[in-house]
Amino acid sequence: MDSAPDHSKDATRQLARLIIASRFEDLPESVRHEAKRTLLNWVGCAIGGSGHKTVNNAIAALLPFCGPGQASLFGRREHVDILHASLLNGISSHVFDFDDTHAATAIHPAAPVAPAILALAEHQPISGRDFINALVVGIETECRIGKAVTPSHYEAGWHITGTVGVFGSAAAAGRLLGLSEQQMCWALALAAAQPVGLQEMFGSMTKSFHPGQAAQNGLTAALLASKGFTSSEQPLEAKRGWFDVMSTKPNYSALTEESWEILNNSYKPFACGLVVHPVIDGCLQLRNAHRLTPDAIDRVDADVNPRVMMLTGIKEPASGLEGKFSVYHAAAVALVEGAAGERQFSDEAVRAQATAELRRRIFPSVDSAIGKVQARVTITLKNAKRLVAFVEHAVGSVKKPMSDAAIEQKVFGLADGILPSDQIRHVVDLCGRADQLDDAGEIARRSAKA
Amino acid sequence: MDSAPDHSKDATRQLARLIIASRFEDLPESVRHEAKRTLLNWVGCAIGGSGHKTVNNAIAALLPFCGPGQASLFGRREHVDILHASLLNGISSHVFDFDDTHAATAIHPAAPVAPAILALAEHQPISGRDFINALVVGIETECRIGKAVTPSHYEAGWHITGTVGVFGSAAAAGRLLGLSEQQMCWALALAAAQPVGLQEMFGSMTKSFHPGQAAQNGLTAALLASKGFTSSEQPLEAKRGWFDVMSTKPNYSALTEESWEILNNSYKPFACGLVVHPVIDGCLQLRNAHRLTPDAIDRVDADVNPRVMMLTGIKEPASGLEGKFSVYHAAAVALVEGAAGERQFSDEAVRAQATAELRRRIFPSVDSAIGKVQARVTITLKNAKRLVAFVEHAVGSVKKPMSDAAIEQKVFGLADGILPSDQIRHVVDLCGRADQLDDAGEIARRSAKA
Repeated sequence: MDSAPDHSKDATRQLARLIIASRFEDLPESVRHEAKRTLLNWVGCAIGGSGHKTVNNAIAALLPFCGPGQASLFGRREHVDILHASLLNGISSHVFDFDDTHAATAIHPAAPVAPAILALAEHQPISGRDFINALVVGIETECRIGKAVTPSHYEAGWHITGTVGVFGSAAAAGRLLGLSEQQMCWALALAAAQPVGLQEMFGSMTKSFHPGQAAQNGLTAALLASKGFTSSEQPLEAKRGWFDVMSTKPNYSALTEESWEILNNSYKPFACGLVVHPVIDGCLQLRNAHRLTPDAIDRVDADVNPRVMMLTGIKEPASGLEGKFSVYHAAAVALVEGAAGERQFSDEAVRAQATAELRRRIFPSVDSAIGKVQARVTITLKNAKRLVAFVEHAVGSVKKPMSDAAIEQKVFGLADGILPSDQIRHVVDLCGRADQLDDAGEIARRSAKA
Repeated sequence: MDSAPDHSKDATRQLARLIIASRFEDLPESVRHEAKRTLLNWVGCAIGGSGHKTVNNAIAALLPFCGPGQASLFGRREHVDILHASLLNGISSHVFDFDDTHAATAIHPAAPVAPAILALAEHQPISGRDFINALVVGIETECRIGKAVTPSHYEAGWHITGTVGVFGSAAAAGRLLGLSEQQMCWALALAAAQPVGLQEMFGSMTKSFHPGQAAQNGLTAALLASKGFTSSEQPLEAKRGWFDVMSTKPNYSALTEESWEILNNSYKPFACGLVVHPVIDGCLQLRNAHRLTPDAIDRVDADVNPRVMMLTGIKEPASGLEGKFSVYHAAAVALVEGAAGERQFSDEAVRAQATAELRRRIFPSVDSAIGKVQARVTITLKNAKRLVAFVEHAVGSVKKPMSDAAIEQKVFGLADGILPSDQIRHVVDLCGRADQLDDAGEIARRSAKA
């Protein structure tokens, strides 16, 4: 989106103007490319999470009330109305906490936006170009509003992906519905009236409910506005508007300054908390450079930031979930299997003999000189040779992004066992040329079980 | 609900216990009677609002995505899934701002609760006794939580009927679904994660969207919890829980003290916000006592509580809806037409010449010595005579309640022209003996157009 002068008295209208003026033609190539990476990563997460108990329970509760089968559920057979598809695919995509992250705001940008516009694209004809533009404008909208209220909003206890994500969904869906400037103001207001999510719900199924419900609420907001359902035209900036109620000292200039927040989006290569990613990265670097096998390894020493031992200090994980909180398991499984995807944090992976044996030869040491995004991994081989890797920025961060090929690999790993491999290949291909598709709905249709 | 000791560390669980232990057998007769008055008044509002543009626009936007015709829309022909019925009937019932009010919290208790459980009662067998108990427990839940966060929550800018109403819907629906104590905690947590409504949206269609969406969100919360969808078990009292995020200095004892908040529910004789009722009452008293005609009036001075000007300060309303937020219009139309029903807040009534002229001679003055339920109306006649009415409690308040017959009259007035009069009579009768019905769903079925 282009920049515009800051007028805090007219903030919503200015934002609405940027949204409705957005066009694929005006997107830099780097932005288009990043949008397709974001899309592909999200699609993999949505398929990968589709069999999770969280999704099963939500479907068991809501399926009897769903509307016509207008939209696909990623990785599943059911088809439901576009509102419930937004909710359920949004849940599915966040359930592993493996989706994209906008580090400056802590928003997971795709989860509230992508499911709403993918569902819409199954219901009405939407070209790939319009779809990619809507995805970008949705992400820009939520990340800009998120930046405007950072840090006070998150610090107050809100789960920003749900509370701010709803604006992204409303903006993206509203753009595709062709809302007028006034209707877009109303859509943003209807979004403002429906924040979803408190951090208190972290650790329960409700965490992934937040972005799903935000997707549904934003789509509802856009649909209502498109039929003349009126709302405030100053929902953000009014005296008792969203900024005032939900934040302190909002930074209005974040709304309209010239930047592409999607270029600051990042994707996780490993299916666990970011804190342990540098160690995994170091292990994989050494494994790949020296073609290491576990039986060649005598011991692994890792110098780590203190947070690593605070958050991932479990020595003998009893389950896949505990494995995500074990630097011992993370390092061992990365060296044994050459990966640290969702499969490497399954109950089976935690119990696998080779990994369990190597786990006892992992020796982390806290070093406060090691930064939060750093680690030093030293592997001593049985032949006494020592290999050292110092990780300055873990792979997957904005400074050292995952390659396109690595994201594809991640998606294959997530979808494996859920969809046939030729179908996964086809979905990956559709995402890679999403902006050239005549019918963006094809991405969603092909992501369901046949 | 019975009282229980206050433990702020266990607030949600205690509330959940009270909810799941509630039984019709334990309700005092006065509570049962008030519940039926609340129900009847709500049904009248839902039928009366059913043809409003707000409802039409919402249906136009959402009907293509609705599920099977499980539940009726009051006063209309369409049948939709129970979630959308909750939303749409909730909107319909609040669109005239003519529904019930719990003055201590400013919550409209029935709008978020009644549509959810009436829809549920069409979908599964629910006796009249269980239905009335659920209505009461829903209202107790929302009003108690509302009391606990009054005044800070409302003062922050939230529309409490939507933000707190969602708890009422979750509690009532959850009670009917037979949730366990843990599930009820989850349902309350899923409700806490989905507040709806900012006061900034007052004066637009979104105001009535708030209780409707709260009804839908609460029902969704209860349905999810019933299928094992987990959430926080301390959503209210946790460090970053709902009380902390949404209020300051919550009063925990309000949650469990022995009281029946439904006995403090009140029904409006006038079709606008309660805040302006004392002024209307004063105007009508003087008009009736002195047989005033508008051309005899030089000016009208009204000493009012500060909230009157905060909430109803629109000087020149451009529509009937804006007229509801104009103390100028409310006073003028009451003096011109001798009434302040829905008809007096139509677009035509706002444009009528005599009212528009008198509106410019209405002079409200804020006086902080005037209580929220009070007003002093001073009419200066063209012959210089001054007439004064001091209203201590407006008609329709708990201190000066509408009679059962007056509520029935109001319902007939609201439903007239929408349903045939024998059908209205039948619906009024069903509400009057709601607790004796074998099938509470009958109330909803009979309230739809044949």
